[in-house]
Amino acid sequence: MLELIERTKRRQGLTAEGLRWLVQAYVDEEIPDYQVAAWLMAVLLIGLGAEETIGLTEALVASGRRLDLVGHGVVAADKHSTGGIGDKTTLVLGPLVAAAGLPVAKMSGRGLGFTGGTLDKLEAVPGLRVDLSATQFVRQAQTTGLVIAGQTADMAPGDGKLYALRDVTGTVDSVPLIAASVMSKKIAAGARFVVLDVKMGNGAFMEQPEAARELAGTMLTIGRAAGLKMAAALSWMDQPLGRAIGNALEVAEAIQTLRGGGPDDLRDLCFGLGSELLRLSGMEADETAARRRLEAVLASGAALAKLREMILAQGGDPAVVDEPQRLPHAPVEVPVYADRPGHVRAIAARDLGYVAIGLGAGRTKKGEKIDHATGIVLHAKVGALVAAGDALATVHATSPDTAAQAVSAVRAAYALGAEPPTLHPLIEEVLR
Amino acid sequence: MLELIERTKRRQGLTAEGLRWLVQAYVDEEIPDYQVAAWLMAVLLIGLGAEETIGLTEALVASGRRLDLVGHGVVAADKHSTGGIGDKTTLVLGPLVAAAGLPVAKMSGRGLGFTGGTLDKLEAVPGLRVDLSATQFVRQAQTTGLVIAGQTADMAPGDGKLYALRDVTGTVDSVPLIAASVMSKKIAAGARFVVLDVKMGNGAFMEQPEAARELAGTMLTIGRAAGLKMAAALSWMDQPLGRAIGNALEVAEAIQTLRGGGPDDLRDLCFGLGSELLRLSGMEADETAARRRLEAVLASGAALAKLREMILAQGGDPAVVDEPQRLPHAPVEVPVYADRPGHVRAIAARDLGYVAIGLGAGRTKKGEKIDHATGIVLHAKVGALVAAGDALATVHATSPDTAAQAVSAVRAAYALGAEPPTLHPLIEEVLR
Repeated sequence: MLELIERTKRRQGLTAEGLRWLVQAYVDEEIPDYQVAAWLMAVLLIGLGAEETIGLTEALVASGRRLDLVGHGVVAADKHSTGGIGDKTTLVLGPLVAAAGLPVAKMSGRGLGFTGGTLDKLEAVPGLRVDLSATQFVRQAQTTGLVIAGQTADMAPGDGKLYALRDVTGTVDSVPLIAASVMSKKIAAGARFVVLDVKMGNGAFMEQPEAARELAGTMLTIGRAAGLKMAAALSWMDQPLGRAIGNALEVAEAIQTLRGGGPDDLRDLCFGLGSELLRLSGMEADETAARRRLEAVLASGAALAKLREMILAQGGDPAVVDEPQRLPHAPVEVPVYADRPGHVRAIAARDLGYVAIGLGAGRTKKGEKIDHATGIVLHAKVGALVAAGDALATVHATSPDTAAQAVSAVRAAYALGAEPPTLHPLIEEVLR
Repeated sequence: MLELIERTKRRQGLTAEGLRWLVQAYVDEEIPDYQVAAWLMAVLLIGLGAEETIGLTEALVASGRRLDLVGHGVVAADKHSTGGIGDKTTLVLGPLVAAAGLPVAKMSGRGLGFTGGTLDKLEAVPGLRVDLSATQFVRQAQTTGLVIAGQTADMAPGDGKLYALRDVTGTVDSVPLIAASVMSKKIAAGARFVVLDVKMGNGAFMEQPEAARELAGTMLTIGRAAGLKMAAALSWMDQPLGRAIGNALEVAEAIQTLRGGGPDDLRDLCFGLGSELLRLSGMEADETAARRRLEAVLASGAALAKLREMILAQGGDPAVVDEPQRLPHAPVEVPVYADRPGHVRAIAARDLGYVAIGLGAGRTKKGEKIDHATGIVLHAKVGALVAAGDALATVHATSPDTAAQAVSAVRAAYALGAEPPTLHPLIEEVLR
């Protein structure tokens, strides 16, 4: 291990064998945390070359089980988002793409810090289980064509162990380490077509477009080296996506979107990412045709039916699809009024992420229980013109006290001004 | 701790308070090894500013006891060498300077890897104890004016703990970390005048003169900030110092030198470093006068008498000073003959350090037992003209087998050539 640390320190590079040994020895507890911590800091400060990043990813994949979906006759699609506020894309995109005929088999994560997680949102559906075994995951992909579950413990255990150490040693913010971590899980999960949604802006981990572009490029390089067909969208997360923030509220918004309503930005993003997947799979030759196909399964109700089918398969109450009021709801709802007229120039997404944590909808530490019912619904998004006294948003809380705190924080997150803001497209660029 | 790691990573610098907290919390086991390891790697790769290096040193000193020699009426001298092969300087320099009237109170270390350590050499003297308490150390400095012992456990414990972690995390080779480590121990040991002997060349940790100069400069900055009067010599360790390598053999050579014989390079180095100490103390105004005084105490036998006095005070057999044959000696002595004629162009010092380990005279791991009797005595040094069949050296071993291995390794360490080598002065430069 000392030799590998020295090589990294001296910018001599590690071989794929060296990286594979390092990850496996760490998983097997043959090398101590402090040596790996020193190596991680050297990687963070010096970087890893493309070959090394690929080698690290392969080592993380090799530390556990790699699902052979293709061997089970499932040529599936997957999607990864770097995380944001109000990002319920998976809940809409999955049913859309699956209903269009391309199976979607996705392993998701939980919310942490200011970003939410798909598993928490799904668990807002009464009865729905996300802890599927690998066998159940494959079988549901075969029969339903849509499965969204948690990662099984035997997949990329090296990544889980490394991430836990990075989290407590100041070594999270490294593009090669982030890219290897994400891609090891995508590769292990077995999908053939993967679209990345790399977020930029105030509500994203990578605020700057350059950093987001670098991360996207690194993930594409890794995925393609592993034989995946990939594309990456760079999209803005400088205000929350859609209107709902909070688990049950977001599920309701996803259902609304699959019923043909819902916010424009959410629908557009799902069409954008989904058409990339149809294109990658070869089902459609170009973006226009792919988008038309997705519009058709939305209009026909096939996508909504696919969501219902998935909820049923995972033990959830399928009736929520038709009666969203069956989802948990918070006892206290308090509107947030504009205290003056103006154009909504900005909504501080990250601040709203922290407001959601304060309401119980998110967690600051792994393992913390959350409240599925609480959250925020925005009535005015960036670009809206509001009058004094108009409702900007509604806070959904468990008590008047927590609601009151949230109300003033939500109001503070809105920047109102005399001039309308310059709007930019939600998807800035697609790297194909 | 995470905040301190982030600040170091982002080159924002740490305050003296931050560093003091870090060291104390680590000593108190309030922060885990892996966080400190990540921080150390960040320091190694990014460096520390002068203020931070001073702050770290002060924090290491503050983690334990600081001996108040001056408060006990002892205004003493100390010396530090960055280590080398055959470096028995302390055993000659200490008695010389003390006999000249300037008390010497030095805490030394043990040998590790290719370099020897003064404590191991002293322990070759039958009965001699180096584990003195702080009280015994101060008292002997008062009464004898010469004491050389091990560091007590309560001095700079933060340094001991940090060094142990650096040793296993690839974070040893950092100038600010090395300088803070050395100087924390010098400051805690309480001497007022300190001369540094920073080695360069094949047998030194810092092979390159630029690195040695940087280290010397950093240590001077730290020591002066703590109120010490200091000078630093940059000296070559590209061949062993003197002729003897191995503990009892080196003690015998030191005694020989104090009797007026011994190798020129050893005597010259001791006069050079010793005259700096007399000058720093104000006892002599310039180098020439200081050197004359040291020559006088050597010629009069006063320096030899001082060594005898110290050995007696620390429980050793003082008769070794007059009868060096009382020192342990190895059962097997095998000469190493030149296989062709030529000028000795180079002697690979580091290789001989490893040969000495092979003979049992050194250790590769802390705590390993060593054999005080074994080692190598060089008969030909760089610049000598030898005939084929001349003895280059003699190996002192415990068995014919280990001797045979050592003989061929010693022969390989000698580079013979047709042309005489260019010799450079032992002390390249003194930084005052």
